[in-house]
Amino acid sequence: MQKSLLEIAQLVNGEVDGNSATMICGVSDVKAALEGTIVFAENEAWLDKAEQSPAVAVIIPKTLARKNKPVIKVASPKFAFGMLMQMYCPKVEYKPGVHQTAVIGENVVIEDGVSIQPYAVVQDGAKIGKGSVVGAFCFVGSKTVIGHKCMLNPGVVLYPNTVIGNRVILHSGVVVGSDGFGYVPHDGKQIKVPQIGTVLIEDDVEIGANTTVDCATLGKTVIGQGTKIDNQVQIAHNDVIGKNCIICAQVGISGSSTVGNNVILAGQVGLADHVTIDDNVIVGAKAGVAVNKHLKSNKVYLGSPAREIDTFKKSFAIQQRVPKLFDRVEQLENELKELKRQIAESVSADTV
Amino acid sequence: MQKSLLEIAQLVNGEVDGNSATMICGVSDVKAALEGTIVFAENEAWLDKAEQSPAVAVIIPKTLARKNKPVIKVASPKFAFGMLMQMYCPKVEYKPGVHQTAVIGENVVIEDGVSIQPYAVVQDGAKIGKGSVVGAFCFVGSKTVIGHKCMLNPGVVLYPNTVIGNRVILHSGVVVGSDGFGYVPHDGKQIKVPQIGTVLIEDDVEIGANTTVDCATLGKTVIGQGTKIDNQVQIAHNDVIGKNCIICAQVGISGSSTVGNNVILAGQVGLADHVTIDDNVIVGAKAGVAVNKHLKSNKVYLGSPAREIDTFKKSFAIQQRVPKLFDRVEQLENELKELKRQIAESVSADTV
Amino acid sequence: MQKSLLEIAQLVNGEVDGNSATMICGVSDVKAALEGTIVFAENEAWLDKAEQSPAVAVIIPKTLARKNKPVIKVASPKFAFGMLMQMYCPKVEYKPGVHQTAVIGENVVIEDGVSIQPYAVVQDGAKIGKGSVVGAFCFVGSKTVIGHKCMLNPGVVLYPNTVIGNRVILHSGVVVGSDGFGYVPHDGKQIKVPQIGTVLIEDDVEIGANTTVDCATLGKTVIGQGTKIDNQVQIAHNDVIGKNCIICAQVGISGSSTVGNNVILAGQVGLADHVTIDDNVIVGAKAGVAVNKHLKSNKVYLGSPAREIDTFKKSFAIQQRVPKLFDRVEQLENELKELKRQIAESVSADTV
Repeated sequence: MQKSLLEIAQLVNGEVDGNSATMICGVSDVKAALEGTIVFAENEAWLDKAEQSPAVAVIIPKTLARKNKPVIKVASPKFAFGMLMQMYCPKVEYKPGVHQTAVIGENVVIEDGVSIQPYAVVQDGAKIGKGSVVGAFCFVGSKTVIGHKCMLNPGVVLYPNTVIGNRVILHSGVVVGSDGFGYVPHDGKQIKVPQIGTVLIEDDVEIGANTTVDCATLGKTVIGQGTKIDNQVQIAHNDVIGKNCIICAQVGISGSSTVGNNVILAGQVGLADHVTIDDNVIVGAKAGVAVNKHLKSNKVYLGSPAREIDTFKKSFAIQQRVPKLFDRVEQLENELKELKRQIAESVSADTV
Repeated sequence: MQKSLLEIAQLVNGEVDGNSATMICGVSDVKAALEGTIVFAENEAWLDKAEQSPAVAVIIPKTLARKNKPVIKVASPKFAFGMLMQMYCPKVEYKPGVHQTAVIGENVVIEDGVSIQPYAVVQDGAKIGKGSVVGAFCFVGSKTVIGHKCMLNPGVVLYPNTVIGNRVILHSGVVVGSDGFGYVPHDGKQIKVPQIGTVLIEDDVEIGANTTVDCATLGKTVIGQGTKIDNQVQIAHNDVIGKNCIICAQVGISGSSTVGNNVILAGQVGLADHVTIDDNVIVGAKAGVAVNKHLKSNKVYLGSPAREIDTFKKSFAIQQRVPKLFDRVEQLENELKELKRQIAESVSADTV
Repeated sequence: MQKSLLEIAQLVNGEVDGNSATMICGVSDVKAALEGTIVFAENEAWLDKAEQSPAVAVIIPKTLARKNKPVIKVASPKFAFGMLMQMYCPKVEYKPGVHQTAVIGENVVIEDGVSIQPYAVVQDGAKIGKGSVVGAFCFVGSKTVIGHKCMLNPGVVLYPNTVIGNRVILHSGVVVGSDGFGYVPHDGKQIKVPQIGTVLIEDDVEIGANTTVDCATLGKTVIGQGTKIDNQVQIAHNDVIGKNCIICAQVGISGSSTVGNNVILAGQVGLADHVTIDDNVIVGAKAGVAVNKHLKSNKVYLGSPAREIDTFKKSFAIQQRVPKLFDRVEQLENELKELKRQIAESVSADTV
């Protein structure tokens, strides 16, 4: 799909510097650029790399100067490049309709343009909104509501009474609405506390492969609008996650925790239960947040137990200086011993 | 489903204090109580919250005094409330019978009251006990034995020769009997060691979504009676887990480890291989237990490497005092320098 | 399946010491040996255990001396025993052919000896090589290529355009080709960056249950030949993993990281993005490797942040000595105080 640099610049609201008639045949990665394609570079180092590559043009920030190859200048090269990728990205079309092998229960509402793939099972009373795709082997539990333009990849399981908003993407192996982990000890055994709440996943959420979101004990577990969750994340009963969060792979959040808006949880973070995280917080990879803790807005937290970044860095710097402290103490011990010896000698001398 | 406070008290073996004719229409969470419902409170703070809520009655411990609303006094409010939730919990009924789309192999034994859901696959020689439910897309491997009153949610996979006890609940995405992770290096490659053992899951076990339990290399991987395992836990080959344990989300246990009875492993704990954990041990979140370690009964372990709680706390307290230690050493250095100067001066004076 | 010790020795290229006509009925675990079987022992302690067990013969290293029971001496007992297990291991036969319930798309190439199990879904343009098995509920996306003699266990999902080599084993719940986790912030929201790359899994790779391997943003995510990956591992977009690696359970590798050949990542390790690990590196359990870090070949790394083992051990040893350092500083403070007092006294005395 050949396009001129000018056409591409118009698509991404950018300015051309160089031959605007340059033909572009696709997009590629600046680290492994392909001939005839356009790449992006966020800084000068990457622009140099692009210059040495077979790419014919580069998308760069407005703050950079062009070198040799024609460029398109934009506010955010990564965002512009993402737009281009959408255009070049092979669109998978799902034919609307219900595959003959799908098992559809009673009183199921299937709106226009919905595609139900082979072997999907949709239980009684479920509702699937306009244009949504229910992939092969998906299980849609009874009375579950799915909004429009959702994409359920193969093998997603939605337990009964789950509510999914619009334009939600669920990757394979996602399980939503499984029982929260609730037991009460009684007579030496662990007695199951029935988990009779549900899950609400708001609009524009994307959830990665094999992630699990448990239903609430009572009430709702909530994933807020626009939040993006990576693979193998665990969201427990009664968690409430805000909007536009980024939750990276293998994060685990225990029950009844609240995460604000625009929060970033890096890989393998663990939140204990009843944690509160305010808006705009970043929690670093592998950090652990203890039970009942409250992380304050606009701050960065690292480590386990998680500490505010300045505190963490101070603590880390102190630890680096400890070996030297041993030397200093040894030095003091030697000097003091020597001094005592000197004084003892001079006292003897005096006595004499 | 309206019930009087008296009826409810009888159900939970509690004592009413207040108007026993008060009508209750359901249960709700004291944090978001609904009008006309009963809630529970484990202490005075929560009782205050209940008093300010629209709930009409509260379940409280015997040790608390009633304030305004009628109460039911019990030994364990959480346990009593759990019993009530069972009553109000919408019971999902699975019609006994084999769905026409289920694929059933040869010599499969299906006992009375069993429900096999759409697209389940049950291989040759498997046996499914009375009243058990095999959910949609479940795979029951050859010669696998499932006890009675088990619940296999959609998409569970049991590899061949697995043995499941009675009243076992497996959530979606659970995989039981996958090959243990065994290889031996040979000529620069990793050669697979065949995993020809099996898995035994005893009565009353519940396993959360996407948890994996590997078969033994030889012999059995065992999950003991009444143990409850959360989501995304990894149990490796030849692990033996005791009874009534609580294993929280994202725990990983390496091979040939033994966990006793009534052990609690908090979230994201990691056990290396050949670890032994005695009865009644608690291991704190994110802790790491090194290879061959032996954790002693009735103790609490924290950190990575895991240390007994007193040791851990001492160590943590020491670390908090280290910054001050730098100040003290600097102080000593200054005082010693001053002292040496004074002595040098007075020696000069003497000499003079 | 009775075999003589001599026959077994020939099978494993070992030397018999003892009665070579001894009949062996099977293999068992030295920790729970069965009568009439052969076990293996890697050192004298285990040989003693074998001697006390009901096993009739033992496979031992050439460097050990026989005690009482007949032995077979080999270079690597574990490897030899693995070979025996293959022989005694019940071979599961999959009848070649396409199950009537499998849904096969258009232009799908299915080579000789392939077995497609119940309810597998194979999309348009896919290709499945000689003798491969596609298990129940497997989803093979469009244009995916699978080599020969592969084993896809029930419930594996391969997104479109995935390339799998020969003799690859994928356990249940594995997801290959799900979207990499890519977003760019724009106007307060997280905008999805299309993930239009693919995954390449080379020959002889084995991947454990519920592990996820994301497709590349552009280009390929690669798992190198002979690498073995355990359960619940997360491999992110554009990761390149070398050959013959061992990646243990619950490891998480962030995007664009490169792992060399013969690397061992122990359980729950986390690699940030853009990490480089050279050949023959070992990373200890729960270690964390920070963004952009470069781990050098033939070294062992422990801790979070990961440090080379000698550095780590020194640091650990220093920490153990810190409590004593407090005592030493207190001692110095007392001695210095005493010394100053003595000097003040003697100065008074002099003045007098």
